Amino acid sequence: MRKIPDILEKLVNSLSRLPGIGPRTAQRLAFYIVQSPGSEAAELSSAITEAKKKVHNCSECGGLTDKDPCDICRSDRRDHSVICVVEHTQDILALEASGEFSGLYHVLMGSLSPLDGIGPENLNIDRLDQRVKKGGVSELILATDPNVEGEATAAYIKEKFKKYNIKITRLAHGIPMGSNLEYADGVTLGKAIEGRREF
Amino acid sequence: MRKIPDILEKLVNSLSRLPGIGPRTAQRLAFYIVQSPGSEAAELSSAITEAKKKVHNCSECGGLTDKDPCDICRSDRRDHSVICVVEHTQDILALEASGEFSGLYHVLMGSLSPLDGIGPENLNIDRLDQRVKKGGVSELILATDPNVEGEATAAYIKEKFKKYNIKITRLAHGIPMGSNLEYADGVTLGKAIEGRREF
Repeated sequence: MRKIPDILEKLVNSLSRLPGIGPRTAQRLAFYIVQSPGSEAAELSSAITEAKKKVHNCSECGGLTDKDPCDICRSDRRDHSVICVVEHTQDILALEASGEFSGLYHVLMGSLSPLDGIGPENLNIDRLDQRVKKGGVSELILATDPNVEGEATAAYIKEKFKKYNIKITRLAHGIPMGSNLEYADGVTLGKAIEGRREF
Repeated sequence: MRKIPDILEKLVNSLSRLPGIGPRTAQRLAFYIVQSPGSEAAELSSAITEAKKKVHNCSECGGLTDKDPCDICRSDRRDHSVICVVEHTQDILALEASGEFSGLYHVLMGSLSPLDGIGPENLNIDRLDQRVKKGGVSELILATDPNVEGEATAAYIKEKFKKYNIKITRLAHGIPMGSNLEYADGVTLGKAIEGRREF
């Protein structure tokens, strides 16, 4: 005998594909959703469709946006001569929350990881090269995560971009090693930006 | 300046309304969803819509089903003389997983909680009364959660149904007190059904 309708099982499976959502949590969420009051399920469903349809990566920096280029890239109140290089789109939010940075961003979409088969050609590095080559950039702040992959990625970019004779800095220690940038608090990130050092 | 597109913000808000999903997790899920590969977002969105449309509460027992009555209520391999009374639809899954029970279920849709304004009239008790009145039921197993509200609910039902002169039992101790039935493991639940006592 089926314990649970197929259609509900399908929802549980879809939910458990999300990061950090195990089968038990997925079941709990699915049961909540089908029993949720009023239009909550419909709103969630359409929010997913709409966001997926309209939100994309900025062709300039790679950050998430519903325009192109994004608000940060097109802003004339930002310092266009400094580009902060991060691994993931979420990292931009964390840095913005620190309030200490007013330059532009560049999202690599990951970090070098030979074991997972991720080399430089799989990262958004060529676009960064184009942005720097175009001129007007005086500093790259390498804000990749302070773990093995992030350090390797930073080292690779330093090597590749030294031909441009621009300042290449790395976020200061202050960020706990071995963690993810996304989870650092604003004050720590502020300290890290303030104390960045030549790389 | 907007840190995040409105449409993405809307998705974050929708997700944070789910139980156990805080603002940080909601943000993480939203960023994942809009950047998810292929048709994953579309599948999740349609799984939500479909499940919400087709899954409803069984008119007999209140369990979740896409038919009416549900598979359990219509099965002739189940013992229709025993009804296990639970608080939530998810509790049925936990009890089914124990493999120790082959009777029918009845979902109360909550428990008595005067502080939250939940009285007997807010619970699915009248329908249980109709089911017992119809005849053929020889035992009610009260499997409400072993906390204050669940005990009060069990006591209320025992009092209300004693006029029918049927056996009224309560799940044996074995379920840790103060927790939720949904999280008990199959063996513990099996022991609890096996050792149920007169209430």
